[in-house]
Amino acid sequence: MTALFDAEIETTADLLRRLGAGARAAAAVLALAPRPQKDAALVAAAAAIRDDKALILAANAQDMALARQNGTSPAFLDRLVLDDKRIEAVAQGLEAVAALPDPIGSVLADWIQPNGMRIQRVRVPLGVVGVIFESRPNVTADAAALCLKSGNSCILRCGSDSFQTSTALAAAIGHGLKKAGLPRSAVQLIPTRDRAAVGELLGLTEFVDVIIPRGGKSLTARVAAESRIPVLWHEDGINHTYVHEAADPEMARRVVFNAKMRRTGVCGATETLLIDRSVAGTMLRPILDDLIEAGCEIRGDTAVQAIDPRVVAASDDDWDTEYLDAILSVKTVDGVDAAIEHVNLHGSHHTDCIVTADPAATEAFLGRVDSAIVLVNASTQFADGGEFGMGAEIGIATGRLHARGPVGTEQLTSYKYLVRGTGQTRP
Amino acid sequence: MTALFDAEIETTADLLRRLGAGARAAAAVLALAPRPQKDAALVAAAAAIRDDKALILAANAQDMALARQNGTSPAFLDRLVLDDKRIEAVAQGLEAVAALPDPIGSVLADWIQPNGMRIQRVRVPLGVVGVIFESRPNVTADAAALCLKSGNSCILRCGSDSFQTSTALAAAIGHGLKKAGLPRSAVQLIPTRDRAAVGELLGLTEFVDVIIPRGGKSLTARVAAESRIPVLWHEDGINHTYVHEAADPEMARRVVFNAKMRRTGVCGATETLLIDRSVAGTMLRPILDDLIEAGCEIRGDTAVQAIDPRVVAASDDDWDTEYLDAILSVKTVDGVDAAIEHVNLHGSHHTDCIVTADPAATEAFLGRVDSAIVLVNASTQFADGGEFGMGAEIGIATGRLHARGPVGTEQLTSYKYLVRGTGQTRP
Repeated sequence: MTALFDAEIETTADLLRRLGAGARAAAAVLALAPRPQKDAALVAAAAAIRDDKALILAANAQDMALARQNGTSPAFLDRLVLDDKRIEAVAQGLEAVAALPDPIGSVLADWIQPNGMRIQRVRVPLGVVGVIFESRPNVTADAAALCLKSGNSCILRCGSDSFQTSTALAAAIGHGLKKAGLPRSAVQLIPTRDRAAVGELLGLTEFVDVIIPRGGKSLTARVAAESRIPVLWHEDGINHTYVHEAADPEMARRVVFNAKMRRTGVCGATETLLIDRSVAGTMLRPILDDLIEAGCEIRGDTAVQAIDPRVVAASDDDWDTEYLDAILSVKTVDGVDAAIEHVNLHGSHHTDCIVTADPAATEAFLGRVDSAIVLVNASTQFADGGEFGMGAEIGIATGRLHARGPVGTEQLTSYKYLVRGTGQTRP
Repeated sequence: MTALFDAEIETTADLLRRLGAGARAAAAVLALAPRPQKDAALVAAAAAIRDDKALILAANAQDMALARQNGTSPAFLDRLVLDDKRIEAVAQGLEAVAALPDPIGSVLADWIQPNGMRIQRVRVPLGVVGVIFESRPNVTADAAALCLKSGNSCILRCGSDSFQTSTALAAAIGHGLKKAGLPRSAVQLIPTRDRAAVGELLGLTEFVDVIIPRGGKSLTARVAAESRIPVLWHEDGINHTYVHEAADPEMARRVVFNAKMRRTGVCGATETLLIDRSVAGTMLRPILDDLIEAGCEIRGDTAVQAIDPRVVAASDDDWDTEYLDAILSVKTVDGVDAAIEHVNLHGSHHTDCIVTADPAATEAFLGRVDSAIVLVNASTQFADGGEFGMGAEIGIATGRLHARGPVGTEQLTSYKYLVRGTGQTRP
């Protein structure tokens, strides 16, 4: 089970140092653990989660009762609740990660220098990963699985609303580790709700190699202000779909609808629709019909309002807003250059799409939009590790360093150079 | 020429914002600049440096005069001074970078998903690079060249002791940019010695994508404490050479001597020699003879002192010290496991070497030493981008994220995903 904590006898700072030391020690073991052993831990953890289902559901019921007491909204309650089906999905998620290739030890480059030294760049784990997340308790399992597969130990900080559920999940994972002969400190959930624990984690430079925050604006702001450990950012998805004048109207209708409404709460959802003024008169109404019928609120600039009276006025803030809801801001633009400029200025450099049949517009958009994922003629909702063939991901990285786009097992690794000589000295 | 600065009319904070905006605008241009244009700028900059030689030498004379007045040591004066030969080397360095392949636009991965979407991972520039360095004025040119080649703009902060020299070099580079039709703000040297400029740069999150510090402990500490921008760390080179009991004695002698004495002031120099107790009695004296004859001071543990009376006692601090001088700490160990443990504990995870003919010891050391560069039977002085076939480097990265080991043009890049669909929507 996860590390016990008694605030009477241990400060939060000491707790985090204890977790850190355990994680660092476990990382040294995991770095050398062969794939079958890591996979055995994942499969055993999946089995333990199924065996502990009643326990996990009971813990979840406690979390749900508290959340209802606190007046949590239905949307957030839905992110928190687990049932048989969702627990089975968590278990299957662990098994899916076990089926992924092991990135550790891969030789990324291999060459011989003129002086005869053979140099290889090989993949190694990052080391100790700190994951701070909110709401969904399944992230406990998903994050632990990806870290473990790529040879990393992890320290997890769940949201306080899923504390009991995450604790029960982490305990099951601990059983899996033990069964496979791996140290329990390979996966540790911070065993206190104390808010100070986050600050301590963000300063644990001696023991933690990277911080991955999965949460909203206030978590992002806190991590930005306080973290002295490198951060793999997962920021807003202020994503755009741009309907260019050479777009196929039917394709535009289907792609835009899917990009907004498939699931409004995911980071890959489109938040702003851009459309060329030259075709707004003909292509826009059908698109808006579908969206409004499905319950989406449309906020548009004056040209869009003139085309459709159901549209409410957009304010300047709307171009910089991630709604994560059935709301779409719509703006007319004059051509691909203007669209690119808007996307680069207002977007969060996450995922943006152009719908067009025109090759020049396609190449301009793909080349000049500065986002992690740029699509032509496909829904922004494809911004997902599974849809990229990566099997699973811990999130979509939006920074420019280390990883960009879906963060799967490969992105949770570093590398080192191995140089094999025969006595070479440098002149 | 570099941006003018008048403290009477502009605060340092405003100056940095002005430089940042210029750099960001230039980065957008550089991201699309074709290779021939970037190379033309580098070649023209080399020519300008040769043309401006007298100017550069005069500026350097001013810096040298001030440095002597300030009582700067001969070793540091030597890092500061330029002569005809060194200026020619700087110019040739720019031309060498022009000859390197252009990393931008490379397709790193290319595949088709089951639903028909074609996904490519392509290289893009990092964006705006902030380089803070001390002493050697040639870093002005080296850093600017590597950034430019990989499509990045840069803001450079030189040490105050090389201010005039760096200003003259940056001016010449500006002529090269102009000649090639690239914006001058692609390379900007901060035009003030004001210490506050560093703090402003470290907080310029809106305009700067990465900070690369090249300096000593106090710069490192300042950057660690203050930077709100991701940092590509270049820390100490507390490097080890470990002479295993199965080492070839002659090879050990040559490799250790080269690793310590080839150039004592480079980050790849070996600072600690570890030697198996079982062979210290026979292999150590000849190694120490060579080093002491060349003027190296030896500090050893009690076993080493017993073997050689010329050795002075090492304190505990010596195992954690980067001398950058003709001083070597020497410790006896009992086997490869103990050596690995010492290296991982006391080293800076930079560059470490084992000398041995034993395959098991080789694989253990290569596999478990957690450093950017791990060698068997070759000198740690090979820790250099040129020696790795990278052509040039901005330093040796010692962190675990983004880049590790030599930072050349490829490491100054990011990537993005391009997805080409035919109307796919996600189920």
